[in-house]
Amino acid sequence: MNTNDAFLEDAATLLGPRGFTRDAELLEPWLTDWRGRFTGKALGLASPSSTDEVAAFVKLCARYAVPIVPQGGNSGMSGGATPDASGEAVLLSLRRMDAVREMDADAMQVTCEAGFILQNLHELAEKHRLRFPLTLGGKGSATIGGLISTNAGGTQVLRHGTMRAQVLGLEAVMADGSVLDTLTPLKKDNRGFDLKQLLIGSEGTLGIVTAATLRLLPEIGGRRVVWAGLPSLQHARKLLLHCETQAGDALEGFEAVPAHSLAAVLDHMPDARAPLDGEHAWHALIELVAATGATDALQELTETLLGEALEADLLEDAVIAANETQSEAFWLLRDSIAPAERAIGPAMQHDISVPVAKMADFVEAISPEVEQQFPGTKAVAFGHLGDGNVHFHVLAPAGATRGEWERSEGKTISAYVHDKVTEWGGSISAEHGIGQIKRDELGRLGDPTSLAVMRAVKQALDPKDLLNPGKLVPLADSHATP
Amino acid sequence: MNTNDAFLEDAATLLGPRGFTRDAELLEPWLTDWRGRFTGKALGLASPSSTDEVAAFVKLCARYAVPIVPQGGNSGMSGGATPDASGEAVLLSLRRMDAVREMDADAMQVTCEAGFILQNLHELAEKHRLRFPLTLGGKGSATIGGLISTNAGGTQVLRHGTMRAQVLGLEAVMADGSVLDTLTPLKKDNRGFDLKQLLIGSEGTLGIVTAATLRLLPEIGGRRVVWAGLPSLQHARKLLLHCETQAGDALEGFEAVPAHSLAAVLDHMPDARAPLDGEHAWHALIELVAATGATDALQELTETLLGEALEADLLEDAVIAANETQSEAFWLLRDSIAPAERAIGPAMQHDISVPVAKMADFVEAISPEVEQQFPGTKAVAFGHLGDGNVHFHVLAPAGATRGEWERSEGKTISAYVHDKVTEWGGSISAEHGIGQIKRDELGRLGDPTSLAVMRAVKQALDPKDLLNPGKLVPLADSHATP
Repeated sequence: MNTNDAFLEDAATLLGPRGFTRDAELLEPWLTDWRGRFTGKALGLASPSSTDEVAAFVKLCARYAVPIVPQGGNSGMSGGATPDASGEAVLLSLRRMDAVREMDADAMQVTCEAGFILQNLHELAEKHRLRFPLTLGGKGSATIGGLISTNAGGTQVLRHGTMRAQVLGLEAVMADGSVLDTLTPLKKDNRGFDLKQLLIGSEGTLGIVTAATLRLLPEIGGRRVVWAGLPSLQHARKLLLHCETQAGDALEGFEAVPAHSLAAVLDHMPDARAPLDGEHAWHALIELVAATGATDALQELTETLLGEALEADLLEDAVIAANETQSEAFWLLRDSIAPAERAIGPAMQHDISVPVAKMADFVEAISPEVEQQFPGTKAVAFGHLGDGNVHFHVLAPAGATRGEWERSEGKTISAYVHDKVTEWGGSISAEHGIGQIKRDELGRLGDPTSLAVMRAVKQALDPKDLLNPGKLVPLADSHATP
Repeated sequence: MNTNDAFLEDAATLLGPRGFTRDAELLEPWLTDWRGRFTGKALGLASPSSTDEVAAFVKLCARYAVPIVPQGGNSGMSGGATPDASGEAVLLSLRRMDAVREMDADAMQVTCEAGFILQNLHELAEKHRLRFPLTLGGKGSATIGGLISTNAGGTQVLRHGTMRAQVLGLEAVMADGSVLDTLTPLKKDNRGFDLKQLLIGSEGTLGIVTAATLRLLPEIGGRRVVWAGLPSLQHARKLLLHCETQAGDALEGFEAVPAHSLAAVLDHMPDARAPLDGEHAWHALIELVAATGATDALQELTETLLGEALEADLLEDAVIAANETQSEAFWLLRDSIAPAERAIGPAMQHDISVPVAKMADFVEAISPEVEQQFPGTKAVAFGHLGDGNVHFHVLAPAGATRGEWERSEGKTISAYVHDKVTEWGGSISAEHGIGQIKRDELGRLGDPTSLAVMRAVKQALDPKDLLNPGKLVPLADSHATP
């Protein structure tokens, strides 16, 4: 019996038929990322049902030197949960570990396992008149473990921070199968390095998150969703500052949408309607919220805020959603930009951030540069202006062939955009992570000291390079490659 | 010329007479921690004036294998900035690096060097009608670098978090003299491990913080400081919940003070007056704040809150400070507890946390146990109830000799308290850090996986063990020692 066969036999014995399979049909959906950009192979699919099983399985993998690719909902943006083509790795799905271990409504905390799905967390919190303040398009499949491993963002980061800010404690299985347990939520704890922080956002390369204690917030009493038309992105920036000053903590979200993106969405969704009648170069989607018991003042706050903004020429026109249905409709327009832009034709997408104050300048300076450098392309930026984070898409020239264009032109365009972002002191991955899609770019553009420290930490905690190898951490010689 | 002499000559050449000294008189104040519990020796005192000089000096130390003890204001609580008795290490003071590199009032951010003093930061922020939301007793000497390295807490953590929450970016010199630069503040950045988080709270054992970008907040428009008398600590817990529910973000601080501590302060400061006339077993010091433009409602909120609390029997009596002078006087009572308790006689002090909801139970359960276990002692807990963090002092029996009692009884008592805290899922260091004073206890009680990961990270980033050796990271065999 060769080593692989021995490993497979031990894995099957350890996890049982529900916990381990090699059935090609069962594996297939999990071997390609949801965007369809990466496809890999795997020795098998492990689906342990407890932390003990994960720990035992990781020990087994360590013994046989089998690489592990951890996976949650398989809805990541960077191919971080897709194995490579070698077929040497085993997929480790956390989806069966979806229990809520403790819901403490008084303390506004929940401890749940890694496979618990974001939407279910929203519903659980709601039942207790609480809320979990992070959401994103993939909420129906994204798992808590995946959200932690990628330090996910979304549309509420402006006020509530990324996933990092929601994690009070976590449990993870390390490369040797030992279990790191920091689930007890302490508001103050200075017992050495904050290892929890190291694991958050490490994309399964340092340890496998198996459970977490998360903070919850009181439910909101009400919200007002505003759609505003603006002459420029600079106006959006000024409107954002105005909202921050006047509304303070009531400002829950602020998204910027260019005319091109709105038109794309309206083409893509025949039933959708533009919130405003006139033409505007830019749009802002603003959400203001109030606690239960403070909702009366919210309508007035919103109206005053918009009135002042109109008077100060910060906007051209604005409408407050009349009810929840209309609020949802406004948000649906925003959430449909990515698929609508994709339907138009091929595009290179960049999830970038620069300091918030510089984002409008960046988009105005770089968009025409990109379009000049790559004739026929169109640069479209939209998204989380309040976080200094936009999705910067470069659309292919008309007639370009999907797949072919990305392969032939894509890398050059992305490298160009990433160079500019780096020159502006920004990040080439604001919220989507590095995974496999940006690993080489991180190696090319990352701060050499940061890269050296990352490699040293990876080597120290996973000396055999078995935890999600090939993801996130650039190779040591990447600076040397041309 | 022996190695030491060669190192000293190179250090003097590199840093010049202002940057390097061996003058015993100049060294002396920095060789003992401010509490006078640790005294060490040093080869010399390096005071570089720039990050480049720090980097060059660290490289020099690496070449000669000279250990480095970084030091800010020397006002730490755990001996983390005091060298050992061997005299082999060099003191590296960051105090000369006290420049403000950039003050961006619009973005509410400041970038300053490690030696910048907290009180100066408060004053700088004030000039721009902003504030820095972290303060503590040693603000006149504590430096930004020291506050980051110890992840300092204080009395505003309840609302604003520890130092970690204030750091948007940092610059640090690593053990090989390379410079890690994450000063650009990005609200979203998922380029791999968040190394900034690893350095915060690492007490100079992984790198030397040389500068940081910090967040600032809008100045407050006004505050109300309340002193309340309560029958028990359980009432304080309930009152805290009441304040959190009713006042939300307006609640800036919530401190608990037992009758014993207030009496000690009044004895210690003959001019001080008790805020309330009657006798109360416990007291709560509460601060509520409002933004400029919302101060009108603050008095009403405070009165309503207290009225409801009185009606619900959450307190026995309460007074709102009539003006700023009285507000300051109330806070001075709180801030004088530690020196007042020290004046009474020897005591073992423990900076501990448990989950917020459990703190009242913990103090009520453990105090009598300690007093019974160690006859003649008195357990006194006071402090940051809102953070689940109290300073748990065990006072020596009457007549005990200072110094002798701590040496003979102290360790046993502290071990007992730390055992209990650990059983309750708490931390033996909530905000003061580990330094040298708690390193062995962390080794004894720490989660073995956490300790192993900490050691691996330390070994990876400082393989020669030259950065603050002997501090924070427990020795590998500490679990084996009795």
